[in-house]
Amino acid sequence: MENEFSSSLLENAVTALSRLPGVGRKTALRLALHILRRPENEAREIGQALIDLRENIRYCRVCHNISEEDVCPICSSPVRKLNVVCVVENVRDVMSIEATGQYDGVYHVLGGLVSPIDGIGPDLLEIESLVQRVASGTVDEVILALSATMEGDTTNYYIYRRLTAPGIAPEGLKITQLARGVSVGNELEYTDEVTLGRSLLNRTLFDESY
Amino acid sequence: MENEFSSSLLENAVTALSRLPGVGRKTALRLALHILRRPENEAREIGQALIDLRENIRYCRVCHNISEEDVCPICSSPVRKLNVVCVVENVRDVMSIEATGQYDGVYHVLGGLVSPIDGIGPDLLEIESLVQRVASGTVDEVILALSATMEGDTTNYYIYRRLTAPGIAPEGLKITQLARGVSVGNELEYTDEVTLGRSLLNRTLFDESY
Repeated sequence: MENEFSSSLLENAVTALSRLPGVGRKTALRLALHILRRPENEAREIGQALIDLRENIRYCRVCHNISEEDVCPICSSPVRKLNVVCVVENVRDVMSIEATGQYDGVYHVLGGLVSPIDGIGPDLLEIESLVQRVASGTVDEVILALSATMEGDTTNYYIYRRLTAPGIAPEGLKITQLARGVSVGNELEYTDEVTLGRSLLNRTLFDESY
Repeated sequence: MENEFSSSLLENAVTALSRLPGVGRKTALRLALHILRRPENEAREIGQALIDLRENIRYCRVCHNISEEDVCPICSSPVRKLNVVCVVENVRDVMSIEATGQYDGVYHVLGGLVSPIDGIGPDLLEIESLVQRVASGTVDEVILALSATMEGDTTNYYIYRRLTAPGIAPEGLKITQLARGVSVGNELEYTDEVTLGRSLLNRTLFDESY
């Protein structure tokens, strides 16, 4: 046989699928053979959905979340607080926070985290547009909602420094971050000591309504 | 937001991807967001490869393996024994057996196993074409290389009955099946008793060359 798969069509499909994260060649082959067993229109729908997604996707001009419109439904909502901006890494984080039902402000999607090791500097992220947004004077609070990782902390710190530089932030701008603490449902025994220490320092008044 | 994903393009891509086996909506979202971060031509290559695969795939007229030609390279090879036919469930099994480098006969790909529970009867598989192949008188040995499962055993039995019916098999046709035994590298302690029993009954002369 000329190649591993006896068909260059199969070879191409397996190679293409294995570019996806978490998909090795064995999984890619399983997916490709599945597609061969299904009706022709199903393969076309899957393939075309991927092409359309990448070619026609649009982002909100204000917050850089994925959007069908020039400005996304969150940024143009009359019931959201436009003066409270939650800074997140990516689109998935917007979904996660929306799913809590606890947030009524707007977002700013960075599109990643500062990571010198991966060659991702602040200029590759939507940080400049956040600075502009804050400098325009319409923002009263910036909530830094990034991962509790080294990259998240680096990015938090960089944004904090940029926003507190002279002449950027309006008088009284609040810069907050997500509370660090014991995860709800987690046993204390299995909480790491750094988190436990932070949760002690940042203890809150007991609230019987929870 | 009108839908979970704030974009129908993303919604469509996630729904399409989650039709693949082993891909839930969370994984589908991760794959879709990955595609958004990659260059546009990569999405097009992946999508088009899936469409091309399903639309243009061809199967060998003799053995039903995936093939670029009317007859596949194995069936048309001058060095393979055309009178020894290994019956397998699917294309992946052909690759597995080819990878052993231990087989120089040809194949017959059934396209599945008989499974009354899933509504898969013998008529949905390439069994009739196997019977024709054997009836033509060119086959001296049929190797049943199906899974050691209930479906595999049912299919083995059905094929055996069809091939041994009067007037089908040529004089002296051998019908064999894969040896059942202890997996190479497996400890005896963890081998199930049925397999162990079979491996005792079918014990072979010690061969120091292994």
